[in-house]
Amino acid sequence: MAHIALPEGLPGITSGFAFRPETAKPMRELAEVLLRGPNTLTSAEREMIAAFVSSRNHCHFCHASHRAAAAHNMGGDYSAVDAVKHDLQTAPVSPKLKTLLVIAARVQESGKQVSSADVEAARAAGATDGEIHDAVLIAAAFCMFNRYVDGLATLTPTDERVYDQMGRRMAAEGYVRKS
Amino acid sequence: MAHIALPEGLPGITSGFAFRPETAKPMRELAEVLLRGPNTLTSAEREMIAAFVSSRNHCHFCHASHRAAAAHNMGGDYSAVDAVKHDLQTAPVSPKLKTLLVIAARVQESGKQVSSADVEAARAAGATDGEIHDAVLIAAAFCMFNRYVDGLATLTPTDERVYDQMGRRMAAEGYVRKS
Repeated sequence: MAHIALPEGLPGITSGFAFRPETAKPMRELAEVLLRGPNTLTSAEREMIAAFVSSRNHCHFCHASHRAAAAHNMGGDYSAVDAVKHDLQTAPVSPKLKTLLVIAARVQESGKQVSSADVEAARAAGATDGEIHDAVLIAAAFCMFNRYVDGLATLTPTDERVYDQMGRRMAAEGYVRKS
Repeated sequence: MAHIALPEGLPGITSGFAFRPETAKPMRELAEVLLRGPNTLTSAEREMIAAFVSSRNHCHFCHASHRAAAAHNMGGDYSAVDAVKHDLQTAPVSPKLKTLLVIAARVQESGKQVSSADVEAARAAGATDGEIHDAVLIAAAFCMFNRYVDGLATLTPTDERVYDQMGRRMAAEGYVRKS
């Protein structure tokens, strides 16, 4: 049961968003720009960073939903996003994305954990400053979203099909509610 | 030196904001709503939560600037915000704010650390669901802001007077840039 009287039946972060629309608006906009805005990283790559950080924060709702969003940005194929979680070094993603995921993992612990060597490795793999910036900020933002979802003890669906549908919709329609 | 080519001379988060205005906009709006929007918690109380969480994340820039913003919401008096950091239980703040700061400290570790007992204690001290929500989200948001600032290794001023001026401006003008 949630810690406060959130609207009933809404899963995860959507209940917090419904409870407090004033904070939902900029949070939705931030997710939209970071995960779906114009970028040299694909939405699939950025959703993989989001899912990876959420997994490391043990936030099941955010991990499962962004895992599904990553998959539905790749034709419904879950293999890459799951491989990233289980063994980053052998996962079938680009060397550049691997270096950005390493940076994201550092940020998940603390911003201070990001070293010059981590950043040099990303640059050597072809990452731009903009891509490094966005990897840091996606990781930081999910340290917020994850804590928001779990800090309120929001409803966490257990049926995996719910997340698959959610991810399909996130990949197709994004995060900003159409009025 | 910053990890990426941020605009020179800008301190802390302002350099990230200048580097990427598209993400700065919702981040500034979120800070404005959370710390200065209509609320039953005062801005001083909310800035104390922000400073407290930043201190626990060891983010000097965010701690020093929001510490100063808290003080300048109380006529320039730093004693309460500093007491909260040094010994929460004896600090000269309300019992209700103490319980919200305990919740914020849990969120700083992980959203899952917030217990029903923490929430019951807040409610017993008079906290509303909205106040508990906002304490959770302010703490979560500063887990993002802190990681963003340190994950890019932004410029951290060492002169305390810089933060005093910054906090005075934050308390007077807020976080959304006037166009």
